[in-house]
Amino acid sequence: MTSKLTHLDESGTARMVDVGGKTPARRTAVAGGSIAMSDEALQAIREGSVKKGDVLATARIAGIMAAKKTGELVPLCHPLPIDAVNVDFTFEHGSIHATATASIEAKTGVEMEAITAVSVALITIYDMAKALDKGMVIGGIRLIAKDGGKSGRWRAAGHEDLEL
Amino acid sequence: MTSKLTHLDESGTARMVDVGGKTPARRTAVAGGSIAMSDEALQAIREGSVKKGDVLATARIAGIMAAKKTGELVPLCHPLPIDAVNVDFTFEHGSIHATATASIEAKTGVEMEAITAVSVALITIYDMAKALDKGMVIGGIRLIAKDGGKSGRWRAAGHEDLEL
Amino acid sequence: MTSKLTHLDESGTARMVDVGGKTPARRTAVAGGSIAMSDEALQAIREGSVKKGDVLATARIAGIMAAKKTGELVPLCHPLPIDAVNVDFTFEHGSIHATATASIEAKTGVEMEAITAVSVALITIYDMAKALDKGMVIGGIRLIAKDGGKSGRWRAAGHEDLEL
Amino acid sequence: MTSKLTHLDESGTARMVDVGGKTPARRTAVAGGSIAMSDEALQAIREGSVKKGDVLATARIAGIMAAKKTGELVPLCHPLPIDAVNVDFTFEHGSIHATATASIEAKTGVEMEAITAVSVALITIYDMAKALDKGMVIGGIRLIAKDGGKSGRWRAAGHEDLEL
Amino acid sequence: MTSKLTHLDESGTARMVDVGGKTPARRTAVAGGSIAMSDEALQAIREGSVKKGDVLATARIAGIMAAKKTGELVPLCHPLPIDAVNVDFTFEHGSIHATATASIEAKTGVEMEAITAVSVALITIYDMAKALDKGMVIGGIRLIAKDGGKSGRWRAAGHEDLEL
Amino acid sequence: MTSKLTHLDESGTARMVDVGGKTPARRTAVAGGSIAMSDEALQAIREGSVKKGDVLATARIAGIMAAKKTGELVPLCHPLPIDAVNVDFTFEHGSIHATATASIEAKTGVEMEAITAVSVALITIYDMAKALDKGMVIGGIRLIAKDGGKSGRWRAAGHEDLEL
Repeated sequence: MTSKLTHLDESGTARMVDVGGKTPARRTAVAGGSIAMSDEALQAIREGSVKKGDVLATARIAGIMAAKKTGELVPLCHPLPIDAVNVDFTFEHGSIHATATASIEAKTGVEMEAITAVSVALITIYDMAKALDKGMVIGGIRLIAKDGGKSGRWRAAGHEDLEL
Repeated sequence: MTSKLTHLDESGTARMVDVGGKTPARRTAVAGGSIAMSDEALQAIREGSVKKGDVLATARIAGIMAAKKTGELVPLCHPLPIDAVNVDFTFEHGSIHATATASIEAKTGVEMEAITAVSVALITIYDMAKALDKGMVIGGIRLIAKDGGKSGRWRAAGHEDLEL
Repeated sequence: MTSKLTHLDESGTARMVDVGGKTPARRTAVAGGSIAMSDEALQAIREGSVKKGDVLATARIAGIMAAKKTGELVPLCHPLPIDAVNVDFTFEHGSIHATATASIEAKTGVEMEAITAVSVALITIYDMAKALDKGMVIGGIRLIAKDGGKSGRWRAAGHEDLEL
Repeated sequence: MTSKLTHLDESGTARMVDVGGKTPARRTAVAGGSIAMSDEALQAIREGSVKKGDVLATARIAGIMAAKKTGELVPLCHPLPIDAVNVDFTFEHGSIHATATASIEAKTGVEMEAITAVSVALITIYDMAKALDKGMVIGGIRLIAKDGGKSGRWRAAGHEDLEL
Repeated sequence: MTSKLTHLDESGTARMVDVGGKTPARRTAVAGGSIAMSDEALQAIREGSVKKGDVLATARIAGIMAAKKTGELVPLCHPLPIDAVNVDFTFEHGSIHATATASIEAKTGVEMEAITAVSVALITIYDMAKALDKGMVIGGIRLIAKDGGKSGRWRAAGHEDLEL
Repeated sequence: MTSKLTHLDESGTARMVDVGGKTPARRTAVAGGSIAMSDEALQAIREGSVKKGDVLATARIAGIMAAKKTGELVPLCHPLPIDAVNVDFTFEHGSIHATATASIEAKTGVEMEAITAVSVALITIYDMAKALDKGMVIGGIRLIAKDGGKSGRWRAAGHEDLEL
């Protein structure tokens, strides 16, 4: 029996999937996630953000730079010269939500780049607010949408109508 | 009014906190998080893990290596020569839980190293299982416990009795 | 005759200076530099800066992160766990001036960290404004002041009275 | 009013420009810069250079390696698999001049790679000579010429006739 | 007389070879090497390997991740978005043998990626076993086979019939 | 039965050894290795070396820079702010021999830094000469001597009298 996991070969050994036979195609992926925090911390970031935007600007840059490091962080990911990656934030009740969109013309997709961007952006917010609230929780990190490639269009539940 | 955020100065500009005046002390931090997935994906990882351990072994190494890159990923974090960082996994109902423990003798703590290790370990599991389940969700990433330093002992709710 | 360059040994071969015999001490360094540009580019950055601060916020983060990479960029530099590094900007007539301050308690100084932070911050401004003005010139990158270590206090001409 | 800066969107938020719609083309960029120093330092490097070439050889390698890290250093730069980058030096009166040439076949240009190579090469010279002269000044870092891409041929003032 | 070394120009200066004029082609390279050690160390790794596979799993991941860093480690190597790289181990009498296979569709080959993967995988085994045996020797690191590109098929002596 | 391998815990899981309880001490390590090549390749490097020293200068810098990345390359190595690392070469009959010496004042040793420096220096020579000789073999990479720390003085067979 061979493994169902593409990154394990028949003997269960970790493998980098060979994408040599794939055709380059335009691919886009969107990922999201959020960080829940106390009102005090949320208020401090919101104020910092109104003043000079530095908290979220720092988290945004951290997310973008991390996306470019995905192949260095995730062992079996391919190093990809991405065309673009961007990160946006929205304030929600009791949390900040981050969304990252990555795109490329390549043999493999950019889901991991989008997920990495969201994760590191949220970790950066944690870092900047941890003196106010050590109990913050990062969660809901997931793929929201992807287009392109052999597996084509995919949408997370609740985002079926989203067009990229 | 000065900002309550230690990483913003009085004008709202992002700052790396100067730890020059702090005394080096033994510090430890534990962080946790989990990835929820379909039974099929969970089963495949569990089998892969029984066979040669490569899925979780790969995620563990990714987490450890990411912890050593925390100062490179999180813009205002100090680069820290950590004494140790390790990552463990437990299978739960419908998810895999990761715990990371980091320690150092330094002027500043290793909470961010533990959180980064957990996050990248979980992202790596996502990468290896995404062909089976694109709807996996990473969540519950948070600090569980920390000891040492000026702010001293801290425990997340529900972990008050945990001794490191 | 031995070379006067500390990084070359008597045969002219590049050497990393052994700092093993030195005593750790508090050390601080300040570096400065500027980027000259057209009024149009300067105005666009100033407006972008007023709006959300993103141009200079991005350059500031780039400079801070580069300082942490100094030992990776400059071949014979020691890797240093710096206590702090920060970057500030001032608008001048026809240019933007950047100043970086780095500090550490270590066996060797942080001049290179300060100079690297200033350089990469200015390069990042160039990158963000190059669509408006390809003729921008980065210049005047130099050490302004340093304190601590065996060679002790040093000030650039014109900054003799600066106290860190 | 939208920003004139391509890296800021209409709300002033930092953006990585999406190059997905661009056509790959051969692109070349040349950048230059120099470091001014005392006669003593200049002489020491010149001698070191005559002997075994290690000062400038080290700076050249540092510049080449930094060019390959441009996408990692400059937050909104695209990671680019460059075809070539090289760095040359000339001794001038009271200074050393560095020139870097980078080329690629890609959707976006290599100006930043050339500028980064020059900057880090000069910083490396600073590092190797700073024991002799702390007052060295790095300056005149700028784009000299670029060919290829939508914006096509561009030359700095005084270099209008330069052919790459 | 010009140098026979492609990485030195006619004046003996180190050069990154410009691959701009080359045509992208599918290229594959295989490298091998081994680490000799005491029976005790070999036995410990074999047991650790039987139990959870962690020694060789760790070395395999280290090799794969290092291959992706080849352009960052080897100064005049081109940064390459490789399609795949994998590492395998076999136990031999008194040693462990590592083989790495890398592939890409690019203007230049992946020999260096395969050699780097083998080297770092073996260094990682050394690290994990050095408490048992400080006298281990890493050797026999060489290219075994390559296909594709202008220089085409090449096989090391003794591997003439190997098909990739 | 617990594993004899310090990097595996009792269940066979890979571990970063916690050095928190160790006392910082001055530590030095020397590693060596060589690359065997054809007379033609050896001659070309020797000539390149006589002319401007660029082949070995490049390999030396690559080795030094790789030593600083050891904690990033070898998964369970501690990141160490080394005091010094240097690389030397000697021409032998049919090969070039590399020696690296690393030193630090830390809780753990620098054997891996010295071995990594030697390995990457030799890989870099391979890269620069591979157009002349694809059959080069890198071998004999091993620890030659170490001083300091709990395990104290150690010498490879044949180097018992070497003093660092």
